[in-house]
Amino acid sequence: MAEEVLLSISGGGEETQKFLEKIILKYLGNHLLNSLEDSTLLEVSTSKLAFTTDSFTVKPLFFKGGDIGKLSIIGTLNDLAVMGARPRFLSLSLIIEEGFPLRDLERILKSMQETLSENKVLVVTGDTKVVPRGALDGIYINTSGLGEIIYPGLSARNLKPGDVIILTGSIGDHGVCILAEREGFKFEVDLESDCASLFPMLEPLFTSSLELHALRDPTRGGLAGVLYEWARASKVDILIYEEEIPVKPQVRAFCEILGFEPYHFPSEGRALISLPEKEANVALEILRSHPLGRKSKIIGKVLEKREYPRVYLETPYGTRRILELMEGEFLPRIC
Amino acid sequence: MAEEVLLSISGGGEETQKFLEKIILKYLGNHLLNSLEDSTLLEVSTSKLAFTTDSFTVKPLFFKGGDIGKLSIIGTLNDLAVMGARPRFLSLSLIIEEGFPLRDLERILKSMQETLSENKVLVVTGDTKVVPRGALDGIYINTSGLGEIIYPGLSARNLKPGDVIILTGSIGDHGVCILAEREGFKFEVDLESDCASLFPMLEPLFTSSLELHALRDPTRGGLAGVLYEWARASKVDILIYEEEIPVKPQVRAFCEILGFEPYHFPSEGRALISLPEKEANVALEILRSHPLGRKSKIIGKVLEKREYPRVYLETPYGTRRILELMEGEFLPRIC
Repeated sequence: MAEEVLLSISGGGEETQKFLEKIILKYLGNHLLNSLEDSTLLEVSTSKLAFTTDSFTVKPLFFKGGDIGKLSIIGTLNDLAVMGARPRFLSLSLIIEEGFPLRDLERILKSMQETLSENKVLVVTGDTKVVPRGALDGIYINTSGLGEIIYPGLSARNLKPGDVIILTGSIGDHGVCILAEREGFKFEVDLESDCASLFPMLEPLFTSSLELHALRDPTRGGLAGVLYEWARASKVDILIYEEEIPVKPQVRAFCEILGFEPYHFPSEGRALISLPEKEANVALEILRSHPLGRKSKIIGKVLEKREYPRVYLETPYGTRRILELMEGEFLPRIC
Repeated sequence: MAEEVLLSISGGGEETQKFLEKIILKYLGNHLLNSLEDSTLLEVSTSKLAFTTDSFTVKPLFFKGGDIGKLSIIGTLNDLAVMGARPRFLSLSLIIEEGFPLRDLERILKSMQETLSENKVLVVTGDTKVVPRGALDGIYINTSGLGEIIYPGLSARNLKPGDVIILTGSIGDHGVCILAEREGFKFEVDLESDCASLFPMLEPLFTSSLELHALRDPTRGGLAGVLYEWARASKVDILIYEEEIPVKPQVRAFCEILGFEPYHFPSEGRALISLPEKEANVALEILRSHPLGRKSKIIGKVLEKREYPRVYLETPYGTRRILELMEGEFLPRIC
């Protein structure tokens, strides 16, 4: 086989077959994907499903804490998990530039394989398109995901006055890592993506008898993006205690130097949860018992209903300022 | 709103919200997509589902008989239909180059809207990424699809000696149309894509009591691609009557001038069906009663079992030659 991805791979002829068998199935093969039919037959155990899709255009492809392969699996698993679903099946669509190194593609597929296996999820259907040189920068990956609902009712519209808001770890790690690596910033302290699958940490919350109102992972748009989406969808004000938001020192330093706010940087392995205050202690206990949730804490609360709601930051001095929603061009190709 | 697609659209902030509400939901909005959650909750009426994915990189974006919008819906609906599934839900992921004309994007979305509505299918979850100028040529679209199985058992592994093979219309129309438009070939006779949804034509076959063995639409790889996939998966020789294969005169002329075989050109609105000979007459009657299947006919038959199977063409002179599977670089960005 050639050392580069060739146009002929996606022509539907001999080379397509060989590519599927020698490369794709080598890493991702399973009893469902191996059928290689136009669509794959699945059996689900409930009629209530969650369905999601995401395309990944991150640059660089390989970064500290992950790569586009791991990210494209994790991102979709997390979109299912935050809606109370157990991730079951993924689709995978690769769009590759002619001449892309096969070595890099295999490294990406191997990373996917590991992430899939850790999460007991299968890629069951796929597609590969190769486009001529210059028609795309390297490789973009789409995954769509299907999950089975095990905790129904979570919604951005579901926040209630009196809820507290829990965050499961530090914010901005993924976004800052990608930006720093892409732009070649050098820091003494390492920056690393927090890219991680949330379902294993969340599952015990779903199977407990706790009342949960909303759940989300702060990816594009960051913490501020989720909080504004929630505030607007539920028509409630939200108050966040600035001092309580965990930001790693190296992330904070990076943001200060460049004049950014960490609230706008995406994470890829954190969860935000809105739930009644009386449930918070048990929820924190459950979350902290998982390695990914060890630093879970309450960072804010839901205030009263409001027609034009806002998100406030309470500063360490006890004053309040409005948390700004990010505007304008900010972070292309961050996920 | 700007007249071009801007990077800020996919940043997760204010502009993302505005873009989703003013552009995406304007054309594709429905009670499920409107939730704009990280994944969408669905209710299915059977535990047996079909799942598929496809990315569309076709160039040009607009062509006679369709455009990338229509094609990206039809392509995925057909991948579900040929496995015996009723298409239900689609995901839609747009990857757009910064600066892409908003007018063209709206034209694409409008075309999708019409195709979805004709087929009573909803886009229920989506994603938009905008990448900087030069990182992609215009727009690529991924759709994944979920269908409910209404006719189980169709498979490329399921051809039986004695089956006949039905083709529902002329071959190569889509591929030849795209190639001619892209390369600027001028012909007196118009070439038009056959891009069309197959499910309405196939549904009466599925709900009849007919025995069907395999079904496929000859897209990438063309007629030859499907026949070889079937032959190899079922380990049977296949014989096709060359004279019976419907090829439009303008498609044949195009192929002859350029030295191609029409058997390698993709269609986007034709079905190939393998079924027992005794079922053929009723199947043809059903197919011909739908406008899309009016020209359905038997084009070949399945011969004996074979470890290393081949596909033969019987020429008008009664001799046999081997149908060649397409090799090498052929038709990038055809779908």
